[in-house]
Amino acid sequence: MASKSFYAVVAGVGAGTGRSVALRFARSYPVVLLARKPESYSGIVSEIKQQGGQAFGISTDTSDPQSVASAFEAIKKELPDKKLAAAIFNVGPGFAVKPFLELTASDLDTSLSGNARGLFNFAQSTLPSLLDAVPTSPNPPSLIITGATASVRGSARFATFAAGKFAVRALSQSLAREFGPKGVHVAHVIVDGVIDIPRTKGWTVNEGVEDGKISADAIAESYWHLHTQHRSSFTHELDLRPYVEKF
Amino acid sequence: MASKSFYAVVAGVGAGTGRSVALRFARSYPVVLLARKPESYSGIVSEIKQQGGQAFGISTDTSDPQSVASAFEAIKKELPDKKLAAAIFNVGPGFAVKPFLELTASDLDTSLSGNARGLFNFAQSTLPSLLDAVPTSPNPPSLIITGATASVRGSARFATFAAGKFAVRALSQSLAREFGPKGVHVAHVIVDGVIDIPRTKGWTVNEGVEDGKISADAIAESYWHLHTQHRSSFTHELDLRPYVEKF
Amino acid sequence: MASKSFYAVVAGVGAGTGRSVALRFARSYPVVLLARKPESYSGIVSEIKQQGGQAFGISTDTSDPQSVASAFEAIKKELPDKKLAAAIFNVGPGFAVKPFLELTASDLDTSLSGNARGLFNFAQSTLPSLLDAVPTSPNPPSLIITGATASVRGSARFATFAAGKFAVRALSQSLAREFGPKGVHVAHVIVDGVIDIPRTKGWTVNEGVEDGKISADAIAESYWHLHTQHRSSFTHELDLRPYVEKF
Amino acid sequence: MASKSFYAVVAGVGAGTGRSVALRFARSYPVVLLARKPESYSGIVSEIKQQGGQAFGISTDTSDPQSVASAFEAIKKELPDKKLAAAIFNVGPGFAVKPFLELTASDLDTSLSGNARGLFNFAQSTLPSLLDAVPTSPNPPSLIITGATASVRGSARFATFAAGKFAVRALSQSLAREFGPKGVHVAHVIVDGVIDIPRTKGWTVNEGVEDGKISADAIAESYWHLHTQHRSSFTHELDLRPYVEKF
Repeated sequence: MASKSFYAVVAGVGAGTGRSVALRFARSYPVVLLARKPESYSGIVSEIKQQGGQAFGISTDTSDPQSVASAFEAIKKELPDKKLAAAIFNVGPGFAVKPFLELTASDLDTSLSGNARGLFNFAQSTLPSLLDAVPTSPNPPSLIITGATASVRGSARFATFAAGKFAVRALSQSLAREFGPKGVHVAHVIVDGVIDIPRTKGWTVNEGVEDGKISADAIAESYWHLHTQHRSSFTHELDLRPYVEKF
Repeated sequence: MASKSFYAVVAGVGAGTGRSVALRFARSYPVVLLARKPESYSGIVSEIKQQGGQAFGISTDTSDPQSVASAFEAIKKELPDKKLAAAIFNVGPGFAVKPFLELTASDLDTSLSGNARGLFNFAQSTLPSLLDAVPTSPNPPSLIITGATASVRGSARFATFAAGKFAVRALSQSLAREFGPKGVHVAHVIVDGVIDIPRTKGWTVNEGVEDGKISADAIAESYWHLHTQHRSSFTHELDLRPYVEKF
Repeated sequence: MASKSFYAVVAGVGAGTGRSVALRFARSYPVVLLARKPESYSGIVSEIKQQGGQAFGISTDTSDPQSVASAFEAIKKELPDKKLAAAIFNVGPGFAVKPFLELTASDLDTSLSGNARGLFNFAQSTLPSLLDAVPTSPNPPSLIITGATASVRGSARFATFAAGKFAVRALSQSLAREFGPKGVHVAHVIVDGVIDIPRTKGWTVNEGVEDGKISADAIAESYWHLHTQHRSSFTHELDLRPYVEKF
Repeated sequence: MASKSFYAVVAGVGAGTGRSVALRFARSYPVVLLARKPESYSGIVSEIKQQGGQAFGISTDTSDPQSVASAFEAIKKELPDKKLAAAIFNVGPGFAVKPFLELTASDLDTSLSGNARGLFNFAQSTLPSLLDAVPTSPNPPSLIITGATASVRGSARFATFAAGKFAVRALSQSLAREFGPKGVHVAHVIVDGVIDIPRTKGWTVNEGVEDGKISADAIAESYWHLHTQHRSSFTHELDLRPYVEKF
C-alpha cells in the first residue's frame, strides 16, 4: 500500500544496501536518495520509476551540515505536503586497514567525519520531521542506521574505522533512548559479513559457499520489518550475518 | 501461501506469545501445539481452525525427555508426510522472585529444568527434523527460542530465574553456531518488557501509557520475520521492547 | 599481615587456580580447602603449612547441599571464633565437548549440577558468614567465582558446558547486585585461555609461545586484588587471558 | 622498588584519577604529567617530590598532534636514558548533557577531538616507546585508558559524550589486539560512578551513603594492578563502581 502522504529518505546509496533499501521502501513511499555524486543515485532513481515508484536524488555530503541542510530544504520544496516516515543512514566512508602506527590523523578524521558527524547531521535534520509524523504515520516513523562488525569490535588494524563505527552506535543508542518514548523508532543494524555486490564479486568469503555473502535485498527486508514493527515491540539493534559466518 | 508439505510446532502455548505465534505460523503451516495441559492449547486449536488453518495439540512436559519423545512420535503418526519448517520454544516455567537466602534448591531446579532441560529435550527432538527439511523448505528451517530480560541480566532477587534463562541462551548460541552452517536458523529472542495478556491486564507498567505492554501479535510478527529471513542474512538474537521501556 | 580473626574458604582445589588461590590467600588468612577427594587438597594443605600458613581440607561435594552444610558445620567447630573474609568458588566439573545430537541428558545434568547447583549451595552457606564479617573485616568480604570463555560464549559443541557456565554467571550477577550494597564483594572472573598446569603441559596453545598459557599464580594475584579493592571501587567481572590469546 | 631505568607518563591530571594514578606510579617510577595548564599538574609534582618521588609536568593539549609530539621530545631530553613502562590516558574533556536537538556540531567535535583524537595522538607517541621497553621492563609495558559509563552505554541526552567515549573504547580494543601479542598491555577501565573529588563534594549520589563515590586512590590501585599483571594473564577491560551503584 503506497502512502501518498509520507516519504522516505536514504542517505548513502550505491550498489549495495542503500539501493536495495531504496527499492524496498519505494514500494510504499516516494523515496529521496542522498549520495555525494549523481552517478550513485541516478540509476536507482530510474529503477524505482520503472517499477512504478517515485524517487529523486540530491547530491549531498552528509559530513557537511550545510550540504545536509540544503538537501532537506530542497526536499521540502519538492514534497511540500509529505511527512517523513523513514530515514535510513547507510553512509560508509572509505576506510584504512593498517597497522596502528601507519594510520594518520587524516584516516581518523575521515572515519569520525563520515560516520559520526554524518549521522549527527542527518539525525538533526530528520528527527524533527520524524517527530512531526508520529501522530499520523501508518508505521512508527523510523531512523535506521547501518553498522558493521566494527561497530562492536575493535579489531587489530581497524582502529580508526572502528572508532567511527563505535561512535555511530553511541549516537544511535542515545537517540533510541531519547526519541523512542516520543514514538520514533531508532534502530542500529550490525551487518556482520561481506555484502554480495558487484565490487565483492571476486572475493572468496566463507570458502565460497552459496549465499556466503549477504544479499542486499535480504538486508532491505529486515530494514522494512524494523520499520513496520509495532511500537509496543521495537527492536533497537539487529545483527545480520550469513548462515555460514563465524561469530 | 500455505504449505502442504511442512508443519510448525510451538512448545509452550497459553494466553500470550505462544498463542500469537501459533496463529501467525498457522497462516502458512499446520501447527502442532505443545503444553502441559489441554486447556492451554484447545482454545487456540479452535481459533486456528476457525480461521481455516490446521492444528492440533499434544499434552507434553518439555522438561521430561520421555514426554517430548512421545509427542514427536505422535506427530509423526499424525503428519507422516510433512517435514518440520519451524520449531518455537516458548516455555516459561513459573519462577520465584525472592532474596537469595530465601530461595530453595527446588526454586533453582524448577528454573533449570523448565528452561534449560526443556530446550535441550525440545532441540534434540526437533533438530534432526529441521535438518531434514533444509533442502526443500520454502524458508530456512528455524528453531526460535523465547528469552527474557533475565536472559542477559541477573538482577537482584532473580538469581534462579536468571540462571535458567542464561542457560537457555547458552544452548541457543551453541545451537546457532553448530546448525547455522547446516542451514537451520536458530534465533533467540529477548522479550524485554511485560506482555499484554489477560494475566497482566491489571498491571501498571511504563506509567500505564498506551502500548506500554508488548503486543503478543507484534512479537509473533518478528518471529515470522526471523523465520523468513534469507539464509545469507540471519539474525541470531533479537530484542523486543515497548517504545517507552527503559533499557 | 595475617589476620587472626578471619579465614578464607576455597571450593574446588586441585593442581591449578584453586591451589594458587589457596596459597595466595593463606599469606593472610587460615584457609579451608574443599574438594571431593582428599588427594586434591592434602598436598596443598602441606604446602601452606610449610610456608607457615594455616590450612585444612574437608571432602565436600558442592553439588550436594547436605555435603556443603556438613562442611560448614565442621568449619564452625574447627574455627569457632573466626569470621569468613573470602569465599572462592572454583569448581570445574568435567565436561563433554560433542556435537549437540550426541550430548545426553546426563551431560547437561553434570554441567548444571556441578556449576549452577554447586555455586547455589556454596553461596547459600557462605553469604550469611560473609555478611556477618562486613563490619569488621580488613577487606570487603568477598565471594569470587571462577568462570571461563564458555561463561559468555556458547560455542558449537559446547552446548551443555556453556549452559552450566552461563547459569553460574547469572547467579554471580544477581548476587553481586543483591549483596554488593550490603558490603559483600561478589566478582566473576572469566578465565579466557588454557591454564598452565601439569595436565596441560603437553598441549600446544597459542603456537607454543612462552607464557601462552595462563599462570595460575597470576590468576591468584588478580583474585587477591579483587578481594582487596576498596568498596567504593568494586570490579564485578574480570577477564584474564594470555597476551597472545585471540579475543 | 623504584626503577631507575623506566618512567611513566600520565595524560590528563587534575584533582581526581590522574593525580592519584600519578602518585601511585611515582612510588615506582619517575612520572611525567601532561595537562593543558600548569595549574593542573604543578601541585601534583610538588606532592610527588615531597614523598621522595621524581616528577615534572609539561603543558600539553593531547588533541593537538604537534603539542603531543613536542611533549615527547621534551621528555626525551629530560629523561634521555629511560624507557617508558606505563602510559595512562586519563583525558576527560568537558561535555554537554542536552537533548539531542540542542546539541551542536561543536559539542560533537569537542568530544571526538578531546577523546578519540587525544588518545590517537597519545597512543602514536607512546606505543613505539612502550614496544621498546618490552624486553627489559620489570612489568609489561602498559597503556591504560580511562573510560566511563558512557563508553558502553549511549544514554538519552549524552549523545555526543558517548560518541567520543565509544570511539576511545574502539581504539583501545584495537590497540589491545594489535599490541598485546607484542608484549604491551593495553587496558580500558570503565569508571562507572561519580569520583570523590573536590568538585563533586556537594553532590549527593547513591543516597549519600559512605563510600558511595569512588575513591580516586582506589582507582589508582586497580591501574597499578593492571600494570603489574603477568603477561600470561592480562585484563583488557575493567569496570569499577561503588558497592552501592546500580548497574
